[in-house]
Amino acid sequence: MKYDVFGIENPLIDLLAAVPDAFLNNQGLEKNKMFLVGLEEIQTLLTALSNLEVVAEPGGSAANTILGVAQLGGKAAFAGKVGGDDYGRVYIDKLREAGVETFISTDGHLTGSTVILVTPDASRTMNTYLGACRELGPQDIPLDALRESDRLYITGYLWDTDTQKEAALLALKTAKKHKIPVALSLSDPFCVNRHREDFIRILTDYASLAFANREEALALTGKDTTQQAMKELKSMCDGVVITLGGSGALVTEGRETVYLDPFPVHAVDTTGAGDAFAAGFLYGKSQKQSLHQCGRLGNAFASQVITHMGPRLKGDVRDLLAPVLANPRD
Amino acid sequence: MKYDVFGIENPLIDLLAAVPDAFLNNQGLEKNKMFLVGLEEIQTLLTALSNLEVVAEPGGSAANTILGVAQLGGKAAFAGKVGGDDYGRVYIDKLREAGVETFISTDGHLTGSTVILVTPDASRTMNTYLGACRELGPQDIPLDALRESDRLYITGYLWDTDTQKEAALLALKTAKKHKIPVALSLSDPFCVNRHREDFIRILTDYASLAFANREEALALTGKDTTQQAMKELKSMCDGVVITLGGSGALVTEGRETVYLDPFPVHAVDTTGAGDAFAAGFLYGKSQKQSLHQCGRLGNAFASQVITHMGPRLKGDVRDLLAPVLANPRD
Repeated sequence: MKYDVFGIENPLIDLLAAVPDAFLNNQGLEKNKMFLVGLEEIQTLLTALSNLEVVAEPGGSAANTILGVAQLGGKAAFAGKVGGDDYGRVYIDKLREAGVETFISTDGHLTGSTVILVTPDASRTMNTYLGACRELGPQDIPLDALRESDRLYITGYLWDTDTQKEAALLALKTAKKHKIPVALSLSDPFCVNRHREDFIRILTDYASLAFANREEALALTGKDTTQQAMKELKSMCDGVVITLGGSGALVTEGRETVYLDPFPVHAVDTTGAGDAFAAGFLYGKSQKQSLHQCGRLGNAFASQVITHMGPRLKGDVRDLLAPVLANPRD
Repeated sequence: MKYDVFGIENPLIDLLAAVPDAFLNNQGLEKNKMFLVGLEEIQTLLTALSNLEVVAEPGGSAANTILGVAQLGGKAAFAGKVGGDDYGRVYIDKLREAGVETFISTDGHLTGSTVILVTPDASRTMNTYLGACRELGPQDIPLDALRESDRLYITGYLWDTDTQKEAALLALKTAKKHKIPVALSLSDPFCVNRHREDFIRILTDYASLAFANREEALALTGKDTTQQAMKELKSMCDGVVITLGGSGALVTEGRETVYLDPFPVHAVDTTGAGDAFAAGFLYGKSQKQSLHQCGRLGNAFASQVITHMGPRLKGDVRDLLAPVLANPRD
């Protein structure tokens, strides 16, 4: 196959700026929070930042995972929609530079972005504007490329506009028709509560692998323990990954269940931990590794990400994960 | 069968006294530590305590577990050796009062004891004198009663003198001959390092259930992750319980593996958490509960114990664990 993992989701450009605390106060922003904002708000924010240095990096949950797969040496592809603006071009260029095959269409709206304001105390205050992401439709799904993929990866964040849902369903149906395994990340407990029935249907009808943290797993299943949530999720789709924050992670597939110890690292910023876990796990799958080794790769990737600011790793990821890559476990 | 669980181990009477910090200094004791001491040292300590109020309670690792089984309503029996002194009589009386059938022989040595000094900051400083415990021999094992038991429970703390080991081996061989399942608690990482080969042989040749915390499991197997240690332990005996401290617990048996969330409790004193877990789990087994429910009972019992000072629960344990007892999970 041409691609190990094909990801579809919101391409959001991360716009990082170091600002004093006064900037947050002037903009009426609550520190350390993450908000969805509209066009006017994001424009006001970008205007306020126009005199400051802003670093632009490709972001968004599934794109972070797909980038991680590519960093590990996997053949990764990504589809989504950006605006016909500079940020859209930067997004596509940077994804390609990182070795990801891109199938990103453009649209008259602004490229979706997350403005990440880093204050001197290393806090991150985030505002996400979805923009062009919301215009993704069935016509934007590159069916030929998808058919040449070993796995489809989507996340719950795609469940927003009707056209996005139609696009996702077309991808899911195509994958099912061609027996391409589907992995779904539940994204966020809020997202799960909002689209519970849809997610259950996708897991039951299309997916063979679910990624969730404990909160998302409990929210989806309505259960009150990880164990029951895992059982319930497994009744929907065979492979289940539940991350447990500082307590490690649980992965199950077939009759096997594996617990992964938490890595003894000092967490600086947990943003992107789930995306990184998915990247390591999916890369392991592409290499036909054991369930245990896939979990270790996910766990190791996530543990590295949380020791840094931001959702992605810089530098040679294979080098950073060398101890785990070099000693696969069965 | 007459007994659900038959425990054999060191009957140690807990001698609790509230003392000022100066008492520890005068006795040259390091706060919050646990030491094994000889006859002279324990006598000095008891003399120093002679003017203070001392509360005597039956203790010792396996006895705590057996008491817990009885508190839950299980039919529990216990064998060990005490001295022919007052403490020995108190020990036997209190165990019987608690509903445990006792097969405790006596000996010319002093009853084994743990002097627990509680300072005003709620710290516990412990000194254990094994005394008569070390004199246990094959002649002290009540074979008829053992044969009428559903399960034998022993702990690694029995691995001390040659006669204790002979007693344990006789019990193990008798259990094997009569197809009585054996559960072994690994007791302590230090204990494991000292008797690694013996414990591996017992697990391999006699036991069907192993209780360990993460440190003990890693020490026994020489592995560096919980997952590998579990796999290795499972290759020795089918049932494995690994407690993960504040991260919950893992239990496995047959092809099933269950993760138990940690209870969201405030830990005051973790002494006895492992003994309590074993009590809940073994009681669940005696009631033919599912692996998940056995784990929940162990987890719930342990989580209650750590919210109190000391290794045992007072009052109506069935009432304290009612939410778990009343809603068994499959």
